[in-house]
Amino acid sequence: MTRSPEATRFVLVAGTTETARREGISAAGADADLLSTTPAADAELLTYGRPVRTETVPVSPSGCPTPALVTRAVRELLDVELTVVDGGLAEPTAAPTVSVGAGVGRDIGEQDPVPTAYGAFEAARQFGRKLPTNELWLAETIPGGTTTALGVLRALGEEAMVSSSLPENPIERKEQAVREGLEASSMEPGDAAGEPKRAVRRMGDPVLATLAGLTTGAVETDTAVTLAGGTQQLAVGALVRHTGYEGRLGLATTSYVADDRTVDLRSSATDLDLDLTVTDPGFDASDHVAMERFVAGEAKEGVGMGGALTMADRAGIPMADVRERFAAVYDDLLGEHAADTTPNAGGASR
Amino acid sequence: MTRSPEATRFVLVAGTTETARREGISAAGADADLLSTTPAADAELLTYGRPVRTETVPVSPSGCPTPALVTRAVRELLDVELTVVDGGLAEPTAAPTVSVGAGVGRDIGEQDPVPTAYGAFEAARQFGRKLPTNELWLAETIPGGTTTALGVLRALGEEAMVSSSLPENPIERKEQAVREGLEASSMEPGDAAGEPKRAVRRMGDPVLATLAGLTTGAVETDTAVTLAGGTQQLAVGALVRHTGYEGRLGLATTSYVADDRTVDLRSSATDLDLDLTVTDPGFDASDHVAMERFVAGEAKEGVGMGGALTMADRAGIPMADVRERFAAVYDDLLGEHAADTTPNAGGASR
Repeated sequence: MTRSPEATRFVLVAGTTETARREGISAAGADADLLSTTPAADAELLTYGRPVRTETVPVSPSGCPTPALVTRAVRELLDVELTVVDGGLAEPTAAPTVSVGAGVGRDIGEQDPVPTAYGAFEAARQFGRKLPTNELWLAETIPGGTTTALGVLRALGEEAMVSSSLPENPIERKEQAVREGLEASSMEPGDAAGEPKRAVRRMGDPVLATLAGLTTGAVETDTAVTLAGGTQQLAVGALVRHTGYEGRLGLATTSYVADDRTVDLRSSATDLDLDLTVTDPGFDASDHVAMERFVAGEAKEGVGMGGALTMADRAGIPMADVRERFAAVYDDLLGEHAADTTPNAGGASR
Repeated sequence: MTRSPEATRFVLVAGTTETARREGISAAGADADLLSTTPAADAELLTYGRPVRTETVPVSPSGCPTPALVTRAVRELLDVELTVVDGGLAEPTAAPTVSVGAGVGRDIGEQDPVPTAYGAFEAARQFGRKLPTNELWLAETIPGGTTTALGVLRALGEEAMVSSSLPENPIERKEQAVREGLEASSMEPGDAAGEPKRAVRRMGDPVLATLAGLTTGAVETDTAVTLAGGTQQLAVGALVRHTGYEGRLGLATTSYVADDRTVDLRSSATDLDLDLTVTDPGFDASDHVAMERFVAGEAKEGVGMGGALTMADRAGIPMADVRERFAAVYDDLLGEHAADTTPNAGGASR
């Protein structure tokens, strides 16, 4: 095989917001500590296929594995260049990361939750301009990120609702958090229309700032961008539209987000002129434990899962193969007879 | 294709030492500023195939391109996982990097040139222990690094001499720098025998500390390690031997280092019980401008060039193919009709 600078590149932006510490808004991790470990672990899972510094695979309280395992499974089937960008990690990760100066996001209820937003947006924009690739897929991992996505949408004056990693979307909790945030920032909904950097600094998180900057830089140099994810990526699309960019922008997500009755993803995507692709991994065709929590409506998206499924589909890889590989990745890491994930114990025997 | 965590992994440790600012000791860059840019650029070249944040391809004053282009050429022919570790970079790089806490190295003539040596060694060791791979190839890029390698060898009491990126090895300048360093550290040659971390902190550079830590951690978990490089990697081998490790350790370098009459690489490798592999890229069979400076004795090694050639050879890739690809990489980036290397200008047309 040969590699060319023009290869499709998948970029994961991994970061944190203290908004995730609010009770009942995220399933990305079994407890508050895991919420800050999850993005570092997701980055390692995607890079190495197993936790390295983080040592544990993120699993929700009810047992749903991180969607990173699905994206990793696709990466094992498809040759795609991966780059991880530090979008405000709270813990060191063994995954190599590009720095754009993003710091940990503070709670949305604070007056200035993302002081690094402007700098991260601009550094990410420069990186997006210079990245030698023709096709960029952008993914995120940030527990609590749908709440800050809602904050950004409201600050921009967009009506879209956001989805949830929980089976029951805690919309009222999120709207309460956003009201607190708007009040702390002395803003009304729509006050940051046309001012995306202000919107993300006052009401967002460092991952949204980084993704919006990356997208803006990439499209400035005619790189095709697909936002891989659900309603958090919808917020990124909104931020990019509010920079004034009117060109093509893709959104690729899972059927779980598209089918979420608490949101209307299709009409929100239409409102923002995003080319929407929805991919169903067909997990209901399997009785594997790794898939049943997704079928029950948990997780739904994250770590670019929907984008990865779309890439697999476009490359002609049957979803049955994706499911089989996902099951193998899960069994190796989390199955009944999983090798211990402590240093190298599983590596040699696999 | 599929990726497995057991894949062979090539790790580049990129960093700096202010020792490179001493006159006449390095060819890795056309002027003093480029000396600090070179490792960041090498990391980008290996990762993306072109400069990204750094914008220029390192070239010596006489026109010898960085050996990163040779290693990149091999990477385009062979599927090898790449990880870049920040071994004390002075400039930001767009290449994703793993942090082990290494800071910029100060001049060898100072009393404590590598204050981050202990921390970087231990963090790199943990990373080396946990990295899921069966076979690790370790490479370096650090201008001025042969002088600090000499410093480490002398501090450990090893007799080996170091090579040079210049056609005429400025041995006297290096020995003078080492004498100054020993004096500043109140040390005699051999005073740090059996104390590798002390040797590298007082007389080395952050890349040597990181590489020695990585190697130590990897061999502790039975990962096969090959040090890809010349006499700087010989110093890494010496550091690892002085930790007490007596097991297998490989050294893979180019014929240019092995043929350097100012050093006796073969006997030095034997003294340290390193399994030496020497690969000749056959550049003298070509009249391409990219190769003639190497044939004239410049550069010789760096950015894992010798290791990359060895990997290509073991994979059955003819050296003629490596030369052809190297010429193509060079022509694209530096040739007469090279595309401008400013942001994305070259990307679209290649």
